[in-house]
Amino acid sequence: MPFVHIHLLEGKPKTFLQSIADGVHEALVEACHIPQGDRFQVISEFKKHQFIVDKTYFDIERSDDAVIIHITLKIGRSHDIKKALYQAIVTKLASHPGLRKEDVMIILADNDPGNWSFGNGIAQLIS
Amino acid sequence: MPFVHIHLLEGKPKTFLQSIADGVHEALVEACHIPQGDRFQVISEFKKHQFIVDKTYFDIERSDDAVIIHITLKIGRSHDIKKALYQAIVTKLASHPGLRKEDVMIILADNDPGNWSFGNGIAQLIS
Amino acid sequence: MPFVHIHLLEGKPKTFLQSIADGVHEALVEACHIPQGDRFQVISEFKKHQFIVDKTYFDIERSDDAVIIHITLKIGRSHDIKKALYQAIVTKLASHPGLRKEDVMIILADNDPGNWSFGNGIAQLIS
Repeated sequence: MPFVHIHLLEGKPKTFLQSIADGVHEALVEACHIPQGDRFQVISEFKKHQFIVDKTYFDIERSDDAVIIHITLKIGRSHDIKKALYQAIVTKLASHPGLRKEDVMIILADNDPGNWSFGNGIAQLIS
Repeated sequence: MPFVHIHLLEGKPKTFLQSIADGVHEALVEACHIPQGDRFQVISEFKKHQFIVDKTYFDIERSDDAVIIHITLKIGRSHDIKKALYQAIVTKLASHPGLRKEDVMIILADNDPGNWSFGNGIAQLIS
Repeated sequence: MPFVHIHLLEGKPKTFLQSIADGVHEALVEACHIPQGDRFQVISEFKKHQFIVDKTYFDIERSDDAVIIHITLKIGRSHDIKKALYQAIVTKLASHPGLRKEDVMIILADNDPGNWSFGNGIAQLIS
């Protein structure tokens, strides 16, 4: 159910992008207990002039490796679970592909369970 | 008012993309009773390594033709209307461009009517 | 905290895009009182067949210069502040890069303060 949209500067190897996608998914499985198969992710690669990230906001030093991870997921996760998810993501991405924790920005969008159809025109989460 | 963002693998003809965009719009008109002119859609085409869709989640067999349709619309549609929308979309897209119903994933994002400005800096839905 | 996603047709000079990004940020600072450093923006440029914008909806004449500005921000802004934001954006963009006010569409997505991590795996807005 989560729909993950990863935004970063272009120029990284595919294996680097793959590691980010893998790590975000593993973190969602671990912290949010989603099923392994519940994986829907897209990656947008931007040119420098298209990707504007402040380098110091909140006293966090960001580099050109910064990624913005936008995750749509159904409403109901507690603040504790969200915090655990953020920790899990930065830990996974620090391990592979080796992202600095400062370079990982995460934004969640909650929505209604009725807002998902995984195929066949059915609203699976409310059926 | 809906803002439709269609995500799919690159490599399809423009007429294929056009049919998807047309079908989603017709479904919104039919199921959600939006005006014909209320059409704002963008299409993002991804390379293989940028588009990760599980092939079997929820026992639905997805192919490389899978599309993820993200629709932002103002809050208030009932579950019945949302279900009718999902059915209308997969039916239209099965007809043109001939997408398998299994390949159509839909995600809605509800927002406040005050969250829309269609131009001129006016919040048209609350004015 | 706002995450700004600007969508428009490809083919504009980088300075044009930069002016739009600058103007949206200045408007957020002015109308929503966000800190100067709170800037996170991405710009997606579309081909003609990927960007479908109705030319007259709500009696607003749109041209090929139309931009769709999607802003995710934490919940709590009043309708008055949102209206002030819309006015500030169209005024800034009319000044630089000289966009017609009719060509500026804005969509907001509100979310929970716990839905933001600006780095280090911390939920800064609820810590």
